[in-house]
Amino acid sequence: MNEKLVEILKFNDQGLIPAIAQQHDTGEILMMAWMNLDAIQETLKTGQVCYWSRSRSALWRKGESSGHIQTLKDFRVDCDGDTILLQVHQEGVACHTGRRNCFFYSVEDDTVSINSDVIVAPEDMYKK
Amino acid sequence: MNEKLVEILKFNDQGLIPAIAQQHDTGEILMMAWMNLDAIQETLKTGQVCYWSRSRSALWRKGESSGHIQTLKDFRVDCDGDTILLQVHQEGVACHTGRRNCFFYSVEDDTVSINSDVIVAPEDMYKK
Repeated sequence: MNEKLVEILKFNDQGLIPAIAQQHDTGEILMMAWMNLDAIQETLKTGQVCYWSRSRSALWRKGESSGHIQTLKDFRVDCDGDTILLQVHQEGVACHTGRRNCFFYSVEDDTVSINSDVIVAPEDMYKK
Repeated sequence: MNEKLVEILKFNDQGLIPAIAQQHDTGEILMMAWMNLDAIQETLKTGQVCYWSRSRSALWRKGESSGHIQTLKDFRVDCDGDTILLQVHQEGVACHTGRRNCFFYSVEDDTVSINSDVIVAPEDMYKK
């Protein structure tokens, strides 16, 4: 493991760091998830993004069952060492709802609207 | 307060939600910070981004002392309601180190390099 990286990173009480995934060439923010040290090591080693699933308490190899993988292009860390930015190429869609990205609720005044379309039917998300 | 928004949002045990700030026209990811309900309400009401400072346990009106304010362009929430995306116009620089954005550590193999320049000298950050 990269020693300088370990010095910089600040994990929270659960041993996790939030990681933002951004499509490297368009700047689109795809999703935010969490990584632990194992997920970080695997991501840097394989070049395929792996998160930590808080609901399953297990490594979450993004796209493993759906094919919607994220290939790492650049791994960035912020000034405080407590947030990661993953610049990636997203295969297919990032969101479990079948949308390209997870940030589809748009809030204005007293309304919440949905601003993007479902590209892959949710029931087809995990049929490879 | 927008009732539908309150239904969607999921705060953590500390009553906070992570918020990503992105420059609305270039896609640059500027920083990640935290918001509580008061910070969200103030941001939506004023159109100027306000976070919750975990170190000071106080509302953090971004740019209040430095002039490096963030003007809200779009307020997005993700599929799970546990992450906010603020599309903003950043005046000056987002990072307390005087860099445009906070994600200046780039990690590759065994090296960590710094990939952006200081634009404002840190000692000048809070002299308005």
